[in-house]
Amino acid sequence: MAGNIFGKILTLSTFGESHGEAIGGILDGMPAGLEIDLGLIQRELNRRKPGQSTVVTSRNETDEVDILSGLLDGKTLGTPIAFLVKNIDHKSIDYFHLATAYRPSHADFTYEEKYGVRDIAGGGRSSARETVARVIGGAFAKQLLTKNNISVSAYVNSIGTVSLDIPYIDLVLSGTEDSIVRCPDKTMSEKMIELINQTKNKGDTLGGEITCVIKGVPTGLGEPVFNKLNAALSHAIMSINAVKGFEIGSGFEASKMLGSEHNDLFIMKDGILGTQTNNSGGIQGGISNGNDIYFKSAFKPVSTLMMDQKTVDKDGNQVILKGKGRHDVCVVPRAVPIVEAMATLVIADHLLLNRLSKI
Amino acid sequence: MAGNIFGKILTLSTFGESHGEAIGGILDGMPAGLEIDLGLIQRELNRRKPGQSTVVTSRNETDEVDILSGLLDGKTLGTPIAFLVKNIDHKSIDYFHLATAYRPSHADFTYEEKYGVRDIAGGGRSSARETVARVIGGAFAKQLLTKNNISVSAYVNSIGTVSLDIPYIDLVLSGTEDSIVRCPDKTMSEKMIELINQTKNKGDTLGGEITCVIKGVPTGLGEPVFNKLNAALSHAIMSINAVKGFEIGSGFEASKMLGSEHNDLFIMKDGILGTQTNNSGGIQGGISNGNDIYFKSAFKPVSTLMMDQKTVDKDGNQVILKGKGRHDVCVVPRAVPIVEAMATLVIADHLLLNRLSKI
Amino acid sequence: MAGNIFGKILTLSTFGESHGEAIGGILDGMPAGLEIDLGLIQRELNRRKPGQSTVVTSRNETDEVDILSGLLDGKTLGTPIAFLVKNIDHKSIDYFHLATAYRPSHADFTYEEKYGVRDIAGGGRSSARETVARVIGGAFAKQLLTKNNISVSAYVNSIGTVSLDIPYIDLVLSGTEDSIVRCPDKTMSEKMIELINQTKNKGDTLGGEITCVIKGVPTGLGEPVFNKLNAALSHAIMSINAVKGFEIGSGFEASKMLGSEHNDLFIMKDGILGTQTNNSGGIQGGISNGNDIYFKSAFKPVSTLMMDQKTVDKDGNQVILKGKGRHDVCVVPRAVPIVEAMATLVIADHLLLNRLSKI
Amino acid sequence: MAGNIFGKILTLSTFGESHGEAIGGILDGMPAGLEIDLGLIQRELNRRKPGQSTVVTSRNETDEVDILSGLLDGKTLGTPIAFLVKNIDHKSIDYFHLATAYRPSHADFTYEEKYGVRDIAGGGRSSARETVARVIGGAFAKQLLTKNNISVSAYVNSIGTVSLDIPYIDLVLSGTEDSIVRCPDKTMSEKMIELINQTKNKGDTLGGEITCVIKGVPTGLGEPVFNKLNAALSHAIMSINAVKGFEIGSGFEASKMLGSEHNDLFIMKDGILGTQTNNSGGIQGGISNGNDIYFKSAFKPVSTLMMDQKTVDKDGNQVILKGKGRHDVCVVPRAVPIVEAMATLVIADHLLLNRLSKI
Repeated sequence: MAGNIFGKILTLSTFGESHGEAIGGILDGMPAGLEIDLGLIQRELNRRKPGQSTVVTSRNETDEVDILSGLLDGKTLGTPIAFLVKNIDHKSIDYFHLATAYRPSHADFTYEEKYGVRDIAGGGRSSARETVARVIGGAFAKQLLTKNNISVSAYVNSIGTVSLDIPYIDLVLSGTEDSIVRCPDKTMSEKMIELINQTKNKGDTLGGEITCVIKGVPTGLGEPVFNKLNAALSHAIMSINAVKGFEIGSGFEASKMLGSEHNDLFIMKDGILGTQTNNSGGIQGGISNGNDIYFKSAFKPVSTLMMDQKTVDKDGNQVILKGKGRHDVCVVPRAVPIVEAMATLVIADHLLLNRLSKI
Repeated sequence: MAGNIFGKILTLSTFGESHGEAIGGILDGMPAGLEIDLGLIQRELNRRKPGQSTVVTSRNETDEVDILSGLLDGKTLGTPIAFLVKNIDHKSIDYFHLATAYRPSHADFTYEEKYGVRDIAGGGRSSARETVARVIGGAFAKQLLTKNNISVSAYVNSIGTVSLDIPYIDLVLSGTEDSIVRCPDKTMSEKMIELINQTKNKGDTLGGEITCVIKGVPTGLGEPVFNKLNAALSHAIMSINAVKGFEIGSGFEASKMLGSEHNDLFIMKDGILGTQTNNSGGIQGGISNGNDIYFKSAFKPVSTLMMDQKTVDKDGNQVILKGKGRHDVCVVPRAVPIVEAMATLVIADHLLLNRLSKI
Repeated sequence: MAGNIFGKILTLSTFGESHGEAIGGILDGMPAGLEIDLGLIQRELNRRKPGQSTVVTSRNETDEVDILSGLLDGKTLGTPIAFLVKNIDHKSIDYFHLATAYRPSHADFTYEEKYGVRDIAGGGRSSARETVARVIGGAFAKQLLTKNNISVSAYVNSIGTVSLDIPYIDLVLSGTEDSIVRCPDKTMSEKMIELINQTKNKGDTLGGEITCVIKGVPTGLGEPVFNKLNAALSHAIMSINAVKGFEIGSGFEASKMLGSEHNDLFIMKDGILGTQTNNSGGIQGGISNGNDIYFKSAFKPVSTLMMDQKTVDKDGNQVILKGKGRHDVCVVPRAVPIVEAMATLVIADHLLLNRLSKI
Repeated sequence: MAGNIFGKILTLSTFGESHGEAIGGILDGMPAGLEIDLGLIQRELNRRKPGQSTVVTSRNETDEVDILSGLLDGKTLGTPIAFLVKNIDHKSIDYFHLATAYRPSHADFTYEEKYGVRDIAGGGRSSARETVARVIGGAFAKQLLTKNNISVSAYVNSIGTVSLDIPYIDLVLSGTEDSIVRCPDKTMSEKMIELINQTKNKGDTLGGEITCVIKGVPTGLGEPVFNKLNAALSHAIMSINAVKGFEIGSGFEASKMLGSEHNDLFIMKDGILGTQTNNSGGIQGGISNGNDIYFKSAFKPVSTLMMDQKTVDKDGNQVILKGKGRHDVCVVPRAVPIVEAMATLVIADHLLLNRLSKI
């Protein structure tokens, strides 16, 4: 009920403050008998890790995952899978100057209003460090999807004003990980890196867009009328720090199209029912139709700047906030595995829910 | 667990097929002692009703709400509030030609895949007629918000390519209901009506955008990390039929801005803490900060066209689907109270949840 | 979250005050494609009905069920099944004398404390009339169990001090419905009827015990560690009005036995694994083991007496409560279908949940 | 949804196999600002610990609790509180002989049926070692109750046939912890110890009863109709390993009483509304009425015997199970803090839920 449990059947409970002892979670509801590749869990986590390339924060967080329960001889037991990652590189001293000032567009003020207290060190629970647990949970769920021949692949579609503007279908998504900004187009990838470096020099920050493509989803996933697959995906993605928008299939563009342009006509392809176009983004009436599911999400620029900002402290005094610490200029490349993890958890949950639809 | 219950504390369970006996629901968790204006319930429902103006479907659905429980002497008892609206104008005959054909971009195919059966008449449960129950549930919740000085106002921002492109702050939202397309700008409202009429003559359909503004929300609403207020709003809105996108505050535009442009600087206004801008859309770290909450949603064009469309039937034969029946060219004006209802249910739920945040 | 929704996968939301317009509910999560015998729904409801025999209240409640949604051509659609029973024989006048007095061992005082208001007529929501919706929900669920060869049979084990004291295994349960007190033993049944009549003449009331036997449950049902099958059954039964105790298998007697007496030894019977005894009551470690599940529940005597009782009113004045109205001397015979309904809902829910346990 | 999350508002998610790396959990929904005495957490855990006295198992489990999140400066942050206890004294070798044999009245067979696999070492997740996490969760919740002047005290009412048979009201409950069997009556305590020692010598085991008394509960707790306070308590207690029965207030005895004997008459005591008797056990209509809440639970004898037992293995062969290892003759004394923990979690959850009942 409090907001730290995600999912219906496959539930991820998470915990952890940015500079507390550990970040972790419990994944409950994973069916028994699934082979788990623990290496994959760590590899997914590494894709989220600070310090992985020159375009991300140089903070050194080792982020090694410990599995505490739920597995036996490399397979799931059907019992809760608990995991944690210890917090090592605290450097709480970086945050002392924040003790009373509210950082602009951070959650300092709202946490204090809601809870009457806030954990200043690293933003406490409001820090994106919390997403470590999402990535690990998602990495387990991914293995259920792989077993069902479903793949989830996200990539950076834009950083600031540098935008790909190519439909995912015309991209080679296998190239995403070759780019340190996780953009599958080489030329645009270089432009994005350049923009990040320029912006870093100015002490400013960037946002961007992430597109996610889910292939191999069988028909029937989604629980109308309130837990439609698109609604569940939207909830999952909008719950990630810094996300400001979500669109599926034709998205906002759909609002400008005529019905005769937008409708996905049914056709037979080699004896199999399909559609001529996929404006629906693989979901109709809230239920997957077997086509690729694709959606796009918008991330705002990082709120922590390496420049002075005027703000107000707890007592209402105007103060100057100095730009300090080691922070990302743009989190979007590191957010790719987070978007994938959340989408994966949703699809896995609905794959299980859909076992219940017929007698 | 199945998808027909919405909310955490204030839960709305709904039921009803388009051409079944009735549409209705149960609203559980409404605190006891709230005075209820039953007239308001019916008025909200009338805003959604077919036949209310020349730009919407001429179907005649009386849509009169019956309250079955939960009230005594005009006040809530703290027990479930059940309500229903009988379905009168069935005309099931209109749908006989659909018996085996899958209508493009409808849920015919996906329902059949998921449940092994579908209710052909009017689309059964997949029909937007289901939103009758959302509007009624929302109309009850609205009275809890009013008591807390919170208002929820949606309006049509665009229909097809006719777009308002003015921030909500520069509009007079009290004028929305004077326009039959529910656009508060008179000139644009007329252009929208014109576009609808033109499109109707061609047998084609339109989509559009709805903006929603929520004023008076206290600080503290939202349940990080998974049930952030923005995530809950997104889920609610994306669960409405035909919605393809959702953005809050600066939305997709945020992805193109620099941090120094996007950050909402804290300032003191007349001794009260506020922010210079509101790119955050009233929510930071998933928790309301006291500013206006505003978001935009995109609706795809109506899938039922008044023209021939090629499609495929259950047995894989190509068939021609004739445009028949009385359908909306554009549902966006009628969707305004639905968007408001869903946003209202979310805010009311979180208002209650937030009673639990401190000792 | 509020307490009017029962179940995890198969959820029953109920509504209705004793003397309101209607009692009803929504059953969500029933798999699609199940054939429904509507006659059975009404027959189950008739088993609960007042006025069915000389030993129960003579109140005349017709209790005819209306199904509003979720079915097509006699089969479930996979969408919510809504139903209601109109309240006809209100006679609210019977309750006027209760306007301020708190009836002993009723919920008058506690409802007023919790909600700040109470619906005096018939006890409002606290009335056992609420169980109408449970019986209907259970009658739908029963058809899912029947399809899976599971049967749920309850009977009256004792009324007041007249107790059967024979293990269920030595009774012919098919005879239960031949007895107006629903006791399958003819001699004891007559003694029970005699006791009820005697007690009625004194204006006093009786309680009793109901035993319930569930046959054909496959292995594997139950969700440790918190939603063990026995815990879920206990919750379900203890939520019925007037129930004070629940025991499964060997029950309280188990506490006095030695381990060597109590252990159910595994044996092979005709090549099939079984147990020599069934002290476990068909559940081990919270999971069904394929044996009969049996449990017993205790009902307190009816609180409404046909004699004067001293009590206190809202203002703290001592008042005399007169015995008036048409009330049951003993509800236990009418509670048999209610116990069955709740047990049925639990087993059906867990049957669905168990589809999720393995890959 | 899977069964490892307990509670509605205050949710406890637990994990851990008996011989896995750790046992632990996450307590979410604890209001912010509560002072936490960490010493109390460990002390409660010590009451559950093996090796604490001569009447319990001599296994040496240090059971030291680690808190990983959710606290700052000794107060709750309103974020999830995660904790774990490392498993040290595995001795998995004790269990090798069980590899294929199903232990009578254990969960070996049912886990294997449900999950297709079982963790043989120590019973895996089905081991009562899982209750470590319940005790810790309860110890946090207890501090919320203490702040609200509510106390929860359980004691051993019987072991085997040695039964106290004195109403709780006539006992000095503060003496419970002075007895190594946790029976507040000195004479009976000694008889119980004697019985345990005798039974131990025979290699046999014992069950018993635990009574729990909750004082200071305000009126209004409980969420009818399905989540009545008594139903929630029953669920919580019946979910503990080895519990076979639950009764509240007058319990099973109620079924034999007349209404005129059983009704709790309202009276004024020193200007305050009270009742003459408390057969209701502090709950009427599922809602607390301000009186003491008391209930009794029955534990079956320990299933692991120190004597030979016939059983069957996975392949259907009859085998002899040897009595080995260090096991409790009677777990009832160690179960006292577990019963208290579960009751505490329920009351704390309902204390929070009740904040939502009125406007």
